[in-house]
Amino acid sequence: MFEAKLPNASLLKKIVDAIKDLVNDAPFDCTENSMSLQAMDASHVALVALKLDNGLFDMYRCDRTINIGSSVANLIRALKCANNDDSCMIRYNDDEGDTVLFTFVDEKRDRSQDVTVKLIDIDSEQLGIPDQKYSAVIEMPSSKFQKTCRDLAMFSDSIVINASKGGVTFKSHGDTGGSTLVYNSSSSADDDDSGKIFFNVKEDVNVTFSIKYLNHFAKAASLSNRVRLSICNDVPIAVEYNIEDNGYLRFYLAPKIDDDQNID
Amino acid sequence: MFEAKLPNASLLKKIVDAIKDLVNDAPFDCTENSMSLQAMDASHVALVALKLDNGLFDMYRCDRTINIGSSVANLIRALKCANNDDSCMIRYNDDEGDTVLFTFVDEKRDRSQDVTVKLIDIDSEQLGIPDQKYSAVIEMPSSKFQKTCRDLAMFSDSIVINASKGGVTFKSHGDTGGSTLVYNSSSSADDDDSGKIFFNVKEDVNVTFSIKYLNHFAKAASLSNRVRLSICNDVPIAVEYNIEDNGYLRFYLAPKIDDDQNID
Amino acid sequence: MFEAKLPNASLLKKIVDAIKDLVNDAPFDCTENSMSLQAMDASHVALVALKLDNGLFDMYRCDRTINIGSSVANLIRALKCANNDDSCMIRYNDDEGDTVLFTFVDEKRDRSQDVTVKLIDIDSEQLGIPDQKYSAVIEMPSSKFQKTCRDLAMFSDSIVINASKGGVTFKSHGDTGGSTLVYNSSSSADDDDSGKIFFNVKEDVNVTFSIKYLNHFAKAASLSNRVRLSICNDVPIAVEYNIEDNGYLRFYLAPKIDDDQNID
Repeated sequence: MFEAKLPNASLLKKIVDAIKDLVNDAPFDCTENSMSLQAMDASHVALVALKLDNGLFDMYRCDRTINIGSSVANLIRALKCANNDDSCMIRYNDDEGDTVLFTFVDEKRDRSQDVTVKLIDIDSEQLGIPDQKYSAVIEMPSSKFQKTCRDLAMFSDSIVINASKGGVTFKSHGDTGGSTLVYNSSSSADDDDSGKIFFNVKEDVNVTFSIKYLNHFAKAASLSNRVRLSICNDVPIAVEYNIEDNGYLRFYLAPKIDDDQNID
Repeated sequence: MFEAKLPNASLLKKIVDAIKDLVNDAPFDCTENSMSLQAMDASHVALVALKLDNGLFDMYRCDRTINIGSSVANLIRALKCANNDDSCMIRYNDDEGDTVLFTFVDEKRDRSQDVTVKLIDIDSEQLGIPDQKYSAVIEMPSSKFQKTCRDLAMFSDSIVINASKGGVTFKSHGDTGGSTLVYNSSSSADDDDSGKIFFNVKEDVNVTFSIKYLNHFAKAASLSNRVRLSICNDVPIAVEYNIEDNGYLRFYLAPKIDDDQNID
Repeated sequence: MFEAKLPNASLLKKIVDAIKDLVNDAPFDCTENSMSLQAMDASHVALVALKLDNGLFDMYRCDRTINIGSSVANLIRALKCANNDDSCMIRYNDDEGDTVLFTFVDEKRDRSQDVTVKLIDIDSEQLGIPDQKYSAVIEMPSSKFQKTCRDLAMFSDSIVINASKGGVTFKSHGDTGGSTLVYNSSSSADDDDSGKIFFNVKEDVNVTFSIKYLNHFAKAASLSNRVRLSICNDVPIAVEYNIEDNGYLRFYLAPKIDDDQNID
């Protein structure tokens, strides 16, 4: 028996929206303490890792570790029935093994809507993600990261991220032109922090990534106002969005290893 | 000579919008007391019946019973020229037999725009719609009916409506999952009624319809905040929108007669 | 060396938006006093003429007359990186002959974004536009001109403009119907002028144009609240938008010479 109630269906909508272009299947692992999900994209280049601690839920009960797997398309269909401020009860009963039941309730308007979603078997193995030490960590507004990726995608399919103690640069160049965004350390400490970029650079980093994947990751901007990029030469980037201090959505992407990296 | 003036062109826009996916031709019958229209959809499954009493018009003059028929596409084109709060004069002169003239006037801004629409001969016979006694009548917010149809259409192409004294259920199930909406009698009488569902069930009803058509009907939500569904086993459903207490737009749809009806 | 700074990138965005469906290449001529551009559409029927006086710029420096030519597609790409209220610095350095540098700065948010655009050689000759005396000049809200063109395009691909001392008429008729817009001299002088149409007719004019091109021109409505149409029988129409009293965007279009002109 698994039963959990989110105060707002919008949280699940945003999560599914952020991963739907990367993965087709959503294998949720439910334990006593959290719901989590780990999945590679179809080309095995990017990894999605989601964790929802039970503190995010109004009610959470999980008798034993279970796997609830559904296609992302079916999840989207179910969640389209929910209004953003509906509460969302998720129920899985071992006796009715092949479906999970979502119940969306609008308490103000007296509406309750049941949606059943067919479960599927998903071959998934939890990959152990090694505890990496990164050379540089950049924390910035998630909307700014989204605009950066969208802008640079117009000029090429590679983005070069360069971090040094002096600043952070995002760069993309192609045949018709290019663009460079330079972020210096925000100094004016008395200002409002919401638009600021902070970075902590231990060693200089110069890495190249496929913009297409970063653009997919950046859609998670609706989940959190801030995003944290952790980078290191020759190591996958980690792009992390906190979920109300009780969980996270993380994306990992291996760097491109080609001449683009040497673009000036 | 036919001459009638609507205070707002938006009424006609909404009507044409609500029927444009069902019928290609709009044969208006004009009498001393009202403009009306009756038309079957192309597959002869659904019937549209519109009545606009002369009380809806600022001015209404019809010397003799006439038929003004135009293609819905040409009506749409003409109405696109109107701003929503323009007044709309409709003029038909026997001497200029093959066109009808719309005049849109924005009194505040001093603008007057004439649009002529070519008339066409439409083979239409007024079907006598028998005065049916229904087993159950459901009155609900038109937006809620629209959402119900839209949600359920994601799971199957059939909808099962079940009415008993205890409540009303809308249900749709397919291979990937399904959804059930249950409406109980709204009890809290002191509340605001605008979001409430009322139903009057004399006999239990369990009928199945094609969601596609109900989805088309549901577009008339812009015409009225409330919709009335009248149902009876083995009889077409009547879906009715009142137009400012001086007319109505009604849709009729025959039930599906197949195994779907027995879905539990 | 050419260097110029616009207070708002939105001005360039609006200009490029207004011409992008007409011309593929943008050959800017920069002199001490102004940036200007002249280009024919691909079918050599319409002419675009733009002038931006140095008074529009916060800073303007042009050592010698130069030509900065880029494809409109590349300009659009660069300007998509700018937020509307970013300032926009344009820099061209003879030493780096094949690119122009745009720098978008959001002073409030501490952001600076460089975009380079590849330059191309554009065969262009400044056409001398003769100083034409027009029989009639119509000044109207640019939104009203845009709606007029959009409405009439639904009925035919030709528009007939008729101006006499009594009023101005825009007319279009096709197989399925048609529309006529009549504007009389606005008399109520004490009213707000913003929605008014003014016209000065020396001689009666009756000319026919391709609506498709006028529809393209009308997109410049975002540049200015008012548009001025200057017409004369058998002579190209001039459609002019003022740019903050320090420049203009003008379109010229030759009349259609066929029987449409005699439509009543």
